[in-house]
Amino acid sequence: MGSVVATHPIIARLEALLPAGAVLHRAEELHPYECDGLAVYRRLPLVVVLPETVAQVQAVMRLCSELHVPVVARGAGTGLSGGALPHSEGVLLSLAKLHRILELDPMARTARVEPGVRNLAISEAARPHGLYYAPDPSSQIACSIGGNVAENSGGVHCLKYGLTVHNLQQVKIVTVDGELLTLGGAGLDSPGYDLLALITGSEGMLGIVVEVTVRLLPLPERAQVVLAAFNDVTEAGAAVAAIISAGVIPAGLEMMDQTAIRAAEAFVHAGYPTDAAAILLCELDGTNAEVSSEILKVRKILLSSGASEVRTAENEAERQRFWKGRKSAFPAVGRLSPDYYCMDGTIPRKRLPEVLQRMGQLSEEYGLPVANVFHAGDGNLHPLILFDANKPGELEKTEDFGRRILELCVEVGGTITGEHGVGMEKIDQMCVQFRPMELEQFHAVKAAFDPHGLLNPGKAVPTLHRCAEFGAMHVHHGELPHPELERF
Amino acid sequence: MGSVVATHPIIARLEALLPAGAVLHRAEELHPYECDGLAVYRRLPLVVVLPETVAQVQAVMRLCSELHVPVVARGAGTGLSGGALPHSEGVLLSLAKLHRILELDPMARTARVEPGVRNLAISEAARPHGLYYAPDPSSQIACSIGGNVAENSGGVHCLKYGLTVHNLQQVKIVTVDGELLTLGGAGLDSPGYDLLALITGSEGMLGIVVEVTVRLLPLPERAQVVLAAFNDVTEAGAAVAAIISAGVIPAGLEMMDQTAIRAAEAFVHAGYPTDAAAILLCELDGTNAEVSSEILKVRKILLSSGASEVRTAENEAERQRFWKGRKSAFPAVGRLSPDYYCMDGTIPRKRLPEVLQRMGQLSEEYGLPVANVFHAGDGNLHPLILFDANKPGELEKTEDFGRRILELCVEVGGTITGEHGVGMEKIDQMCVQFRPMELEQFHAVKAAFDPHGLLNPGKAVPTLHRCAEFGAMHVHHGELPHPELERF
Repeated sequence: MGSVVATHPIIARLEALLPAGAVLHRAEELHPYECDGLAVYRRLPLVVVLPETVAQVQAVMRLCSELHVPVVARGAGTGLSGGALPHSEGVLLSLAKLHRILELDPMARTARVEPGVRNLAISEAARPHGLYYAPDPSSQIACSIGGNVAENSGGVHCLKYGLTVHNLQQVKIVTVDGELLTLGGAGLDSPGYDLLALITGSEGMLGIVVEVTVRLLPLPERAQVVLAAFNDVTEAGAAVAAIISAGVIPAGLEMMDQTAIRAAEAFVHAGYPTDAAAILLCELDGTNAEVSSEILKVRKILLSSGASEVRTAENEAERQRFWKGRKSAFPAVGRLSPDYYCMDGTIPRKRLPEVLQRMGQLSEEYGLPVANVFHAGDGNLHPLILFDANKPGELEKTEDFGRRILELCVEVGGTITGEHGVGMEKIDQMCVQFRPMELEQFHAVKAAFDPHGLLNPGKAVPTLHRCAEFGAMHVHHGELPHPELERF
Repeated sequence: MGSVVATHPIIARLEALLPAGAVLHRAEELHPYECDGLAVYRRLPLVVVLPETVAQVQAVMRLCSELHVPVVARGAGTGLSGGALPHSEGVLLSLAKLHRILELDPMARTARVEPGVRNLAISEAARPHGLYYAPDPSSQIACSIGGNVAENSGGVHCLKYGLTVHNLQQVKIVTVDGELLTLGGAGLDSPGYDLLALITGSEGMLGIVVEVTVRLLPLPERAQVVLAAFNDVTEAGAAVAAIISAGVIPAGLEMMDQTAIRAAEAFVHAGYPTDAAAILLCELDGTNAEVSSEILKVRKILLSSGASEVRTAENEAERQRFWKGRKSAFPAVGRLSPDYYCMDGTIPRKRLPEVLQRMGQLSEEYGLPVANVFHAGDGNLHPLILFDANKPGELEKTEDFGRRILELCVEVGGTITGEHGVGMEKIDQMCVQFRPMELEQFHAVKAAFDPHGLLNPGKAVPTLHRCAEFGAMHVHHGELPHPELERF
């Protein structure tokens, strides 16, 4: 085949299909695409394409199918599980140039948009109509709706308003062989199998999302946040349980531990009590009357759950400041240490105190500090492990620690991902989460869309062979799970 | 093969697997299973089985796979699209004896139940904990949760609380070859493809539901209903639009036309204004404060939309009476005519006035009266066509009228089913709703679960061959779509 990489025949064919400048294949052009938000995995693709129309996406897919070339789709590249990590022999298909809002229908309360539209841009466009798009991942300024569909993204408000899948009406995809399919429809339900839900969270493994119709919600009349400080993390966990048991459904219910509180406070001056062991942020939204009555109820519960201090934001500026601390928690913690590794797992709410305690024990065992910032209301944890990649062996130790946390989540009846997806990062933990026959069913579904495995190969669902190997590695933990990859 | 029906070898094999009395094959035993709630289609199965445990369901499926015998699953048999119509050479697998509530976890707000548990029984069991299960199909006293999953059932409250799929946490299925798979998990999201959503609404085509974990919601502090009368159906439709546009999300928003109002009033004395052209029932639920403020808002909108009368239920007894009229509307309309045919389609809310008008024209064209009862808030129509099956040709005329209504729904951007499923009834309209490549994708997904097509064959998703034939029939409409079936 000669020097395959430099002269791969697909490059000229792609250049013939796409506008000038839409095919990148020189090393310096490829570098910006070598990783997504999980920069621990880096790899250069064979070629990057930037189509501007659905027809161009179809043409690219037809060509890749013809030549049996792998394709990795990429939105804004903010994903945190390495799902958009390129394939070294494949096409990196960026949807960034499909970024138009096609239609906003206030009466149907929907917005029809291209996949490259930023999450927040939808709410900005809807605001003049008194509407907004509810799912709000921390990256909402930058992340794109196509990526949100691929990862089934959540956010602070998913406790009340659900994940991406609960806020979609229709998605158009381009299949591996270039066909355009419409999934879902105008109604709440749609006949036939629910391929709309199936594609949501499928991490680019089943098709390329080229159009998304999202449901919009009326802007609540009022939103208000209550901040409670606790001297003990377990008490804060019990307060979460008490709020939920009382029948309150907060718009958001977030917890931060002392490390996270101090980091956020030093970074953005949110006004957090830095001596607290943990804080809860509880947002209530709805009509004025509803929010007033629920705030009273929540304050009472928090005080009787042992909160040392309960503050209600006095105005919108203070409410925004309280949230700013939470939303900046990841970069804030990042300032404490040369590197940090953000985990994402889900546990049943009632196991929260136990899991926090065991995570503390693991932190001591590994000698690595952990900051905890999480969606307490739905049991979605985001432990941030602090480490220094320049110290020999510390990255591997961190990854091993991370694996133990995910396996702890599974052990207590939870899952290895809440909202960040499996991607490259957690593919081995899928072997812990699922039994072989369940993985086989996933592969059968994959084959129904992509029989030759060209879409995002090696991600999200492990082969049974890989699980068998991982089983062995699991016994001798401490080894690298992905030795074939370059590390930073 | 000799006299295959009476002596099919599977019967003795099934009797060896199952307890005494759990295998029925004499004609008089089979008759209760010849149809579901859509009694226009009737057919006797080869044999009925009534397993009592998941292991027995697995054994039945292993045997059927070995012998290549078709299997039709059946819950309570209240379905309205013929989805549980037996296969004459197949096993009718009743889940009625799997009817235990296995676990109720108030802290996690979930109930884990067997598929034969009745929808309403879940809410009854949850009530002492201040919780309930939200989806409430009209048949909720009788219908089973397994059937609800198979059809992705809705109900009066799905406008605010979603369909079955939005209220599930985990489902266990037995596959066609007898494996037990767990779909979904404890968290809001679950890694891997969303097979939980895929199985929901799949009408028994992908697997047998043997356990369901539903999400429970806190009982609202208060629920209140407002009844508004209109002299004009179009005005009532516009009022629906105005309520939704104002940012109110009612717990239910139902419309009935004059025929339905009068029938319901004569049947259950709900206190409806019988001279109105249409009534709206708008339910609001939540905290006391929230409901009070929203009632004021809704009353104002209704009056300014031209309502001739607006009444708020004065107490819980009156609220229940208002709803009783709506929930009894189908049997009430059934008293007006020897037979009625309940349709189920969805349209974009904004096309409501136009669709009602065109349905009136069709009613005149066919000379068959129509009563309209529907979930106005989410555009889910339930036109009831009144006819007399004893008049020669009138059933066929009714079915043709029904097809025209469904095709009208598709024409205005809607779908051929809102919540009753496709089943046997609407299989030809699937050819109108979907393009061949979309149907092909459905078949590929089906094959990923059931490669030999043993699960509920001939339902829900038409073959492309059938669509080609239907295309021809469609031109010469008036013909029977299912001449091979016995009619009542």
